[in-house]
Amino acid sequence: MSVFWLPVRVYLEDTDAQGVVYNAGFVRFMERARTDWLRERGVDHRAFDETLGLSLVLTSIEARFKAPGKLGDILAVSADLLEIKGARAVFVQEVRRDSSGGELLVEGRAEVACVDSANGRARRWPAEFVKELNR
Amino acid sequence: MSVFWLPVRVYLEDTDAQGVVYNAGFVRFMERARTDWLRERGVDHRAFDETLGLSLVLTSIEARFKAPGKLGDILAVSADLLEIKGARAVFVQEVRRDSSGGELLVEGRAEVACVDSANGRARRWPAEFVKELNR
Amino acid sequence: MSVFWLPVRVYLEDTDAQGVVYNAGFVRFMERARTDWLRERGVDHRAFDETLGLSLVLTSIEARFKAPGKLGDILAVSADLLEIKGARAVFVQEVRRDSSGGELLVEGRAEVACVDSANGRARRWPAEFVKELNR
Amino acid sequence: MSVFWLPVRVYLEDTDAQGVVYNAGFVRFMERARTDWLRERGVDHRAFDETLGLSLVLTSIEARFKAPGKLGDILAVSADLLEIKGARAVFVQEVRRDSSGGELLVEGRAEVACVDSANGRARRWPAEFVKELNR
Repeated sequence: MSVFWLPVRVYLEDTDAQGVVYNAGFVRFMERARTDWLRERGVDHRAFDETLGLSLVLTSIEARFKAPGKLGDILAVSADLLEIKGARAVFVQEVRRDSSGGELLVEGRAEVACVDSANGRARRWPAEFVKELNR
Repeated sequence: MSVFWLPVRVYLEDTDAQGVVYNAGFVRFMERARTDWLRERGVDHRAFDETLGLSLVLTSIEARFKAPGKLGDILAVSADLLEIKGARAVFVQEVRRDSSGGELLVEGRAEVACVDSANGRARRWPAEFVKELNR
Repeated sequence: MSVFWLPVRVYLEDTDAQGVVYNAGFVRFMERARTDWLRERGVDHRAFDETLGLSLVLTSIEARFKAPGKLGDILAVSADLLEIKGARAVFVQEVRRDSSGGELLVEGRAEVACVDSANGRARRWPAEFVKELNR
Repeated sequence: MSVFWLPVRVYLEDTDAQGVVYNAGFVRFMERARTDWLRERGVDHRAFDETLGLSLVLTSIEARFKAPGKLGDILAVSADLLEIKGARAVFVQEVRRDSSGGELLVEGRAEVACVDSANGRARRWPAEFVKELNR
């Protein structure tokens, strides 16, 4: 398992009247990082659905906001797979200022379930992907 | 044709680091008003799709921002049908502070097309709805 | 302490390509409910800042997504104060379909800190508000 | 004057229940491109405010939606200065699929005013920037 860092620029759309990144903005950034982490390993939302009839849905999110992000900042957003078992994948994530070595802004955890696109029922992550995701 | 006014509260999510409602926030508010205007006349996005196989898609939007919306404000957002013809419906809209008689914040115009949900092709608005929408 | 329920309509802006309410949308809805709960008890973001120089910032959020919200749904979003002590207030929250007795969609928890608007340092919630919030 | 193209990845947050990029998402993408175009020419929102006491505010937006953006797409979003005069700068913009030569999804136009951050009054764009922006 390897940590992935996505650079994210903070635009006006991401900020709020307190002058900093709005909390749900960080939640969106965390999903961008998970999405790109998965895509790099061959799991693309659209292809997953079209070829396997499977969707990935967020089943839980936790985020602790330690320091504010500011307009114009470049942030580094990580995604790291903690565990994948059955239908469930657990990610730990961070948001840091500037780069992976920068100030810690957010610590988070996300659980993503693999489900049948047609009926929403939990389905095991396909074995060929589990191997790739665990690398 | 009658003007419809939707009250909209401004939350932190709607604001940006300039301390005011973010421009795309007003665009979202305008759609809320069009959606509720249509729903009151029997056109519900989900039902329209499920029963008729039709979707409503925004084909153009214009907005002129005259004055800022602020955190905690109650805004009044209007939707008024200017014209409906063929596949196309044109709305004029306003956002005002407090109520329909309040300070003008935004003037806008939106064109909505009726399309086939399956292939995205333009389709005439069903005649029974045109009559109702023109009332 | 009393549970507060805010009705929230699901618009197109709140949904995603999976056809349901996007996860960060629920996070936004939860803040709307906390904001209105606080406003009913005399704590208004803008007034709090202007008169006391204090801001309320989200320091952590947790949400477990149990069932999907759909386009056009009316949701009921709760906010209930679990604890307020020092600079910290803890809320438990739910999102249910239709009303407070409807299907549970989301369970969450939010911690909000009272901080000095000028420097971001933690400040005790003013005693007069603690009393009101604990009622 | 030169056209600037910003690559933008479409994430789940940008889509809606119609399975495509939500209209206000395109409005956000257009602002990202204007912001980066300006930053490349020395105009940074935050620095502009802190050093000159000036803010840039969107005074009007127009967008015509020609074709849908899809989940996972890479879009190319342009910003091109049409005119800058007094307090006003006018941009023409496009969103295309894949790259600057790809399918046209959106055509737009945005007017941005330079205002005094303290009172919101229109102020001439500083001459040294006008020269740079017109290059």
